[in-house]
Amino acid sequence: MKEVKIGCSSSYQKYGKRFDTSIIKLPSNINISGLFTSNKFPAAPVKVAKKNLIKLDKKKETALFVNAGNANAATGPEGLKDIDKMFTDYKDINILPFSTGVIGERLDLQKYGKSFSLAYESLGKSSWKNFATSIMTTDKKEKIIKKSINIKGEPINFIGIAKGSAMIEPNMATMLSFVFTDLKIGKLKLESIHKLACEGSFNSITIDGDQSTNDSSLLVATGSSLVSLSKNNERKIVKTIQEIFYSLAEKIVLDAEGATKLISITVKGLKTENMCKTIAKNIANSLLVKTAAFGGDPNWGRILMAVGNTDIIFDEMKFNLKLGKVQVYKNGKLNPNYSEKIGLKEFKKRKIDINIKLGDSDKISKILTSDLSKDYVSMNADYRS
Amino acid sequence: MKEVKIGCSSSYQKYGKRFDTSIIKLPSNINISGLFTSNKFPAAPVKVAKKNLIKLDKKKETALFVNAGNANAATGPEGLKDIDKMFTDYKDINILPFSTGVIGERLDLQKYGKSFSLAYESLGKSSWKNFATSIMTTDKKEKIIKKSINIKGEPINFIGIAKGSAMIEPNMATMLSFVFTDLKIGKLKLESIHKLACEGSFNSITIDGDQSTNDSSLLVATGSSLVSLSKNNERKIVKTIQEIFYSLAEKIVLDAEGATKLISITVKGLKTENMCKTIAKNIANSLLVKTAAFGGDPNWGRILMAVGNTDIIFDEMKFNLKLGKVQVYKNGKLNPNYSEKIGLKEFKKRKIDINIKLGDSDKISKILTSDLSKDYVSMNADYRS
Repeated sequence: MKEVKIGCSSSYQKYGKRFDTSIIKLPSNINISGLFTSNKFPAAPVKVAKKNLIKLDKKKETALFVNAGNANAATGPEGLKDIDKMFTDYKDINILPFSTGVIGERLDLQKYGKSFSLAYESLGKSSWKNFATSIMTTDKKEKIIKKSINIKGEPINFIGIAKGSAMIEPNMATMLSFVFTDLKIGKLKLESIHKLACEGSFNSITIDGDQSTNDSSLLVATGSSLVSLSKNNERKIVKTIQEIFYSLAEKIVLDAEGATKLISITVKGLKTENMCKTIAKNIANSLLVKTAAFGGDPNWGRILMAVGNTDIIFDEMKFNLKLGKVQVYKNGKLNPNYSEKIGLKEFKKRKIDINIKLGDSDKISKILTSDLSKDYVSMNADYRS
Repeated sequence: MKEVKIGCSSSYQKYGKRFDTSIIKLPSNINISGLFTSNKFPAAPVKVAKKNLIKLDKKKETALFVNAGNANAATGPEGLKDIDKMFTDYKDINILPFSTGVIGERLDLQKYGKSFSLAYESLGKSSWKNFATSIMTTDKKEKIIKKSINIKGEPINFIGIAKGSAMIEPNMATMLSFVFTDLKIGKLKLESIHKLACEGSFNSITIDGDQSTNDSSLLVATGSSLVSLSKNNERKIVKTIQEIFYSLAEKIVLDAEGATKLISITVKGLKTENMCKTIAKNIANSLLVKTAAFGGDPNWGRILMAVGNTDIIFDEMKFNLKLGKVQVYKNGKLNPNYSEKIGLKEFKKRKIDINIKLGDSDKISKILTSDLSKDYVSMNADYRS
């Protein structure tokens, strides 16, 4: 995607000389869909990006300004003024700011301002990998996915980059995701695909139940591919986008602080998908389930407890529980063939699958989460980065 | 309260010779109010106790049968049959069973049955302290409160006993509370006071957000005191009962597994008490707030994140935050006089007070919780008791 220019630089603050300040310059006449945190204290950059997206002037070029190390969150009205000041020199472009890092501290305008200037000067000289690294906070790995598909011989390209995972890091905030494609697609369609892809990915993971003040997901379509979205290719393209979002979300859970296991929880059979999701999330956020997973203890009583611990009503005699392929509970009764030894084998795995059926409908929800380890507690209690 | 007879015995299972099986025998013509878990998988004893309370024959005596070591939860229809079998010999009394301990295992009818027989034979020979000890699972201390007040020279006596805390123990379930008084009081009035007292106590604590399958709270009024509840003494009596419930709840939080701190969270100023409670509970259940408390790190950005992370809408400019008496945020702005050093002093305390104001109403909710330590993770991951 040559039409997208990347420039990275360093403010020499939290991360030494590592890049922590990036600009992504996008051409005019493109479509951008943005989805943001529903936290009632959205960070200043979230407020500005949302507002600027609504009034986006398509005739102008757009630039994403992304910094790591300071979230510009909980900074009150001053945080908004700081953004105005920092970007006052960038005329005639649409500005979309994104920040991630410590909450409750003001931005150092001089240092970040200078770094953004340098990034702007180096536009076109930095790589996607540079960008993916520059937005990391306590992430252990950069999260980047490239994919191309062909429709009738013509390629469409996709690049997805994300950082963080829920609000797992000490003082850090948190999830940023940027997915770019050269597909030709209308804005409304782009937005509806974006929502769908987020629902099955970022909105279906939880590390600690804590939603950050800075979560932002962007889906950008530059339109430089020769392929336009149509009824014939829609299914394939939507599936590709969903897979990219899901992979980025999975990378986030795999990189969760202190995590030793990936836990997948599927709940099906209730009246609505939302009901399934409520129960799946309740299991995913249960400290007792997460610590049992960490300990490799197939303590299914805790899973049952978490299933019962929401407002959702169901028939106890329709409760079915599988650990992997091992049936623990069937139609409200303990499977007589289940043994602790079989369960143990499933819970010792690096990837734990919990499958629950609570009725006969085809509604289903799948949530990914991590276990809760002593390292998670250490990382979030022992020091402040 | 001589009209209440206590008998304790041991089944010689999980806790060696320690008492783990108790009977509390109550006279006829008394009033009992029961409140139980809202988990959708209530344990078998919860189902039976609820049913038997509804059809309670006041002309008969009533006996509470309480065992620790096995929760008789997630035992399906068999769990109910086991209770029937175990108590078939106890004719002509109302039976209220309570269990706490491992989930998902059947009761050993022979061993518990024999132990209950011995407990029945020793009725009148055991003490309240014996009873309080016999219901402990991984509790470190027995939880018992005795109180007497005088109304116009006549005494009313109160005895409260509880065990556990939320669902904090490995495989254990969980909160049982029994409060006895000799006050003369009607059943409906007793029930409404019970609900009120629970709301401000057991329903206002959280250790890990996990609600057990066995939670039960009983308020028993034998009526042997010369004092009847009346308009003149109601306020004093209700206050005493509320204090007993609050103290038992506080004891539970103080005894939470791995806990090193008691955190009190007060939220006020929203339209309803429930809205205040939703936000207070969200802070109390935030892993990031709990680990910051454990680390003694006054990371108020996490508190702000948790305030914003519910469906409750409020005006950001009315957000006020105090740590103890230290003002951190005032009317949507960081207090310029706040410093990390002052905050640190508050967060190093054994008892942390978080005070939040989000508007001008007088609605208020207070939640007690504990911190999240590495010991909590160890206790719930490393071994299974």
